[in-house]
Amino acid sequence: MGKKVVIVGGVAGGASVAARARRLDEHAEIIMFEKGPHVSFSNCSLPYHLSGIVEDSQKLVLMNPEIFKKRFNIEARVRQEVVKINRKEKTISVKNLATSEYYEETYDHLVLSPGAKPMRPNLEGVNNTNVFTVRNVVDIEKMHRFIKTEKVQKAAVIGGGFIGVEVAENLKLAGLDVSLVEFADQVMTPFDYDMAQILHKELVNHGVELILNDGLAKISDTFIETNSGRKIEADVVVLAIGVRPETTLAEEAGLEIGETGAIKVNHHYQTSDQNIYAVGDAIEVHHRLLNKPTRLALAGPALKQARAAADHMYGIPNRNEGVIGSSSIHLFDMNAAATGLNARTAKDAGIPHDSVYVIPGDKVGLMPNSNPMHFKLVYEYPTGRILGAQAIGKGNVDKRIDVIAAIIKLNGTIEDLKDLELTYSPMLGTARDVVNHAALVAENQLYDLYKEVKVSQVRDLVESNAFIIDAREKGEYQSGHLKNAVNIPLSEFRDRLGEIPTDQPVYIHCRSGQRSYNMVMALNNLGYENIYNISGSYLGINIYEYFNDLVSGREKIVTHYNFK
Amino acid sequence: MGKKVVIVGGVAGGASVAARARRLDEHAEIIMFEKGPHVSFSNCSLPYHLSGIVEDSQKLVLMNPEIFKKRFNIEARVRQEVVKINRKEKTISVKNLATSEYYEETYDHLVLSPGAKPMRPNLEGVNNTNVFTVRNVVDIEKMHRFIKTEKVQKAAVIGGGFIGVEVAENLKLAGLDVSLVEFADQVMTPFDYDMAQILHKELVNHGVELILNDGLAKISDTFIETNSGRKIEADVVVLAIGVRPETTLAEEAGLEIGETGAIKVNHHYQTSDQNIYAVGDAIEVHHRLLNKPTRLALAGPALKQARAAADHMYGIPNRNEGVIGSSSIHLFDMNAAATGLNARTAKDAGIPHDSVYVIPGDKVGLMPNSNPMHFKLVYEYPTGRILGAQAIGKGNVDKRIDVIAAIIKLNGTIEDLKDLELTYSPMLGTARDVVNHAALVAENQLYDLYKEVKVSQVRDLVESNAFIIDAREKGEYQSGHLKNAVNIPLSEFRDRLGEIPTDQPVYIHCRSGQRSYNMVMALNNLGYENIYNISGSYLGINIYEYFNDLVSGREKIVTHYNFK
Repeated sequence: MGKKVVIVGGVAGGASVAARARRLDEHAEIIMFEKGPHVSFSNCSLPYHLSGIVEDSQKLVLMNPEIFKKRFNIEARVRQEVVKINRKEKTISVKNLATSEYYEETYDHLVLSPGAKPMRPNLEGVNNTNVFTVRNVVDIEKMHRFIKTEKVQKAAVIGGGFIGVEVAENLKLAGLDVSLVEFADQVMTPFDYDMAQILHKELVNHGVELILNDGLAKISDTFIETNSGRKIEADVVVLAIGVRPETTLAEEAGLEIGETGAIKVNHHYQTSDQNIYAVGDAIEVHHRLLNKPTRLALAGPALKQARAAADHMYGIPNRNEGVIGSSSIHLFDMNAAATGLNARTAKDAGIPHDSVYVIPGDKVGLMPNSNPMHFKLVYEYPTGRILGAQAIGKGNVDKRIDVIAAIIKLNGTIEDLKDLELTYSPMLGTARDVVNHAALVAENQLYDLYKEVKVSQVRDLVESNAFIIDAREKGEYQSGHLKNAVNIPLSEFRDRLGEIPTDQPVYIHCRSGQRSYNMVMALNNLGYENIYNISGSYLGINIYEYFNDLVSGREKIVTHYNFK
Repeated sequence: MGKKVVIVGGVAGGASVAARARRLDEHAEIIMFEKGPHVSFSNCSLPYHLSGIVEDSQKLVLMNPEIFKKRFNIEARVRQEVVKINRKEKTISVKNLATSEYYEETYDHLVLSPGAKPMRPNLEGVNNTNVFTVRNVVDIEKMHRFIKTEKVQKAAVIGGGFIGVEVAENLKLAGLDVSLVEFADQVMTPFDYDMAQILHKELVNHGVELILNDGLAKISDTFIETNSGRKIEADVVVLAIGVRPETTLAEEAGLEIGETGAIKVNHHYQTSDQNIYAVGDAIEVHHRLLNKPTRLALAGPALKQARAAADHMYGIPNRNEGVIGSSSIHLFDMNAAATGLNARTAKDAGIPHDSVYVIPGDKVGLMPNSNPMHFKLVYEYPTGRILGAQAIGKGNVDKRIDVIAAIIKLNGTIEDLKDLELTYSPMLGTARDVVNHAALVAENQLYDLYKEVKVSQVRDLVESNAFIIDAREKGEYQSGHLKNAVNIPLSEFRDRLGEIPTDQPVYIHCRSGQRSYNMVMALNNLGYENIYNISGSYLGINIYEYFNDLVSGREKIVTHYNFK
């Protein structure tokens, strides 16, 4: 007879521990307990049921207890809640939710994979029947049914994280009027404020009413009220303001809880009781760039933790180098991906850093479906070690971010990125890949070959009457430009040097930063001492609602409701 | 007055040297000589003019001498052939092809970027007017015009490399009958024979007549004849059998030529004359996995070499760690990408290695456009150092290969791949990415956790009457299976252990290898000693024409004309 492995929670982490343990030990007795009716469903796909992209909700359920039993000889007990861990006896107390009966089960190894639960603020109306959260298949089926049977037309989604944004998108695709309310000044915290503007535009352009800098105050049957006093019509309300690790069971058993409020584990994902492992959204993990504990509610890391925990039960060590956090989202016509630190998290952590923001084409320009890709690279200063990156565009941004994730994993630097030999075909990319391109710009910056200011500083420049050169051609300039920029095209500047002052700083932009870079380098070479490239250039300027009053000749950009 | 930089060849490498030199030195005199009428065109996009994907051939020309002059103060002299280098005098002799006049030009630094020219075998008819090669915009315009004006319906493309395959695809898309003739037993040498089968099928399924193991013998106006005596109707013939570096100028100047027949350069891309640099398809580079000189006709490396050469003129050192070779192709509905060594090149080089072949989904299975991705990972044995990878599928295979290219760059191992934290969203990938998945399988193999045979060995197994288990469910088995495989589904094997022999090796496959892997591990655990997983599994078996007679219940696969 083999070991007895008992698992609490039957979704990503729990199911993976079970399957791996079975592969390592055909004789083990493996039991998986799940409070809900389903094991092994695709969490991340839940929102897509709302739009009908996943029409049959049963497809969200990847496995069932019968298949677990037949294929893997794993017993999956659904609708059974583990209510207590008796560490001394090495047993758990279980409540059968169908019969309300209690029973005990022994274990050799216990694995906690209870996940995290959506937060519910203590507000008026929060328990109304039109208020939903999204955690499992039952939740999404209930919401979907409510919307259909009540013929709901107006929805309010509270919270602009992954789940909130994906739910807003899918409700919009289903034809509803959708408001998305976010307390902070941007959605999707893996992205910096400048990059998030693109996501804001994408939401607004597709008809989602985006309300930033505002929170939920109360809920009624037909509307919600925000902190600022605004009333928003909503027949259905989705709470997606965050999740809290499920730690009750662990806490009551006296297991150590970490400083982030999640279950503390060691290198091998053992809790403070070595017979009890914990994996997934309920644990805290080590952030290898911030060098401190963090929480990370992502499926990929949960699968790795699960495998490592199962391996350790059988004496197989696994390297645990901590996490960096890599994620992606498909949002209407855009893809967005991020890894590691962004400029904000690096700054908050006090890590000396700098960043570059480039907007090259994602494919050879003359090929079909070639589009600009917004790419921001964050690196440690002055070492050039890569800390993170963000990419947003219609093309395959995730390819570029995965490359950065690989480079961070191996402690790579700007020089490594620059040297990378990446695949290229005109239908799929460019000979100088976005990643190489960003590295070249970053190297110029790191080596002090030129100076730059960030696109976000443009308002200060304009308001202080700085000398700004728009290096695009005349036609481009005329179709929209910064109000007080002087148009000196790259193709003309050598004959117009007299117009460029030497007694004050000069700031240069073009469309994507390529031509202005050439002009900056030339002027530096000619002995000008105060020449700055505007990182992000006009493509960057042109995503900011904030710059509406600074740009002539363009349609007013609206990126959210209560923009000041 | 600055340096005088003179460049021979105005396409990718040459134009990049010029632009970089300008950025480093506003005072430099920079002259670029180009024999043809165009500078800076997109080589790799040339074939797409044939199908009309790039309708206007002038769009293939990215820059012109006027823009070079105005934007960069670079003099681009087209239709001027550099005929001699006078090293002692530091001058070149130039022939103005418009006037047939000769003149001299001095240089401080000379850069050779002459490229490589298509090979023309010495055969009957090779100089007929219906025979074309593809090197530049003029070539592709000529061929396109010929096809239009002569109303050509039948084309023969000779050579199954990148250019040959892309030309065949684009002619097919233009509505022609296309035959593709390749001397070797497969197209696209970056791919192993097993992976190439998928490309063969894609070509054949889209109506390209693929003729392998056969060469061109002679050409007439309406047909070609192959070495095997076959006549193929063809009103237009495209020669794409390979390229030869343009070394004449360098050789005549007494510059050292390397063992590969290309110009030899040092770390900084200087030839044996330190005032003369050489970059691009005409030089030989160091292969960092094979540790020997090689030739690499790819745009990305040429751009890097160009920058490094220009930098070095100005005292800026650049790291040169050699090349690994990364490439991709879009072919009808498939994408294919490869990096580093494949199993064949590793074997030829005598590098101890092993490989895994997995076929996971490229996205979450229930999402739209989810498809299997064929992925082959090659690693050094027994270190686990990653040597290369190949991926083919409808999804973004290049993303996975770029990650592998990054890992190779930093000398990563299977363990590093396994740990990678890659981005995930159900619309874009899977929680356990293809790359992670392959690494887990490779680790199992490296650690001797189980044994496997390659899918290519299946014929031997069948012909030697080996005991093969098909671990799929009954319905799957019935819809097509290996003739003598025994159907014992993973879901039943524990009750049918009596049917599994202990006195002979047992080989197991399922659809993609996941279920068979679980059965292999279970049997190993139960003490069976001779259990093998069939790598590639049924999805792999099902791409081989070679296995037509071994598989019942499937349509006969045809992947090329003279298959034996």
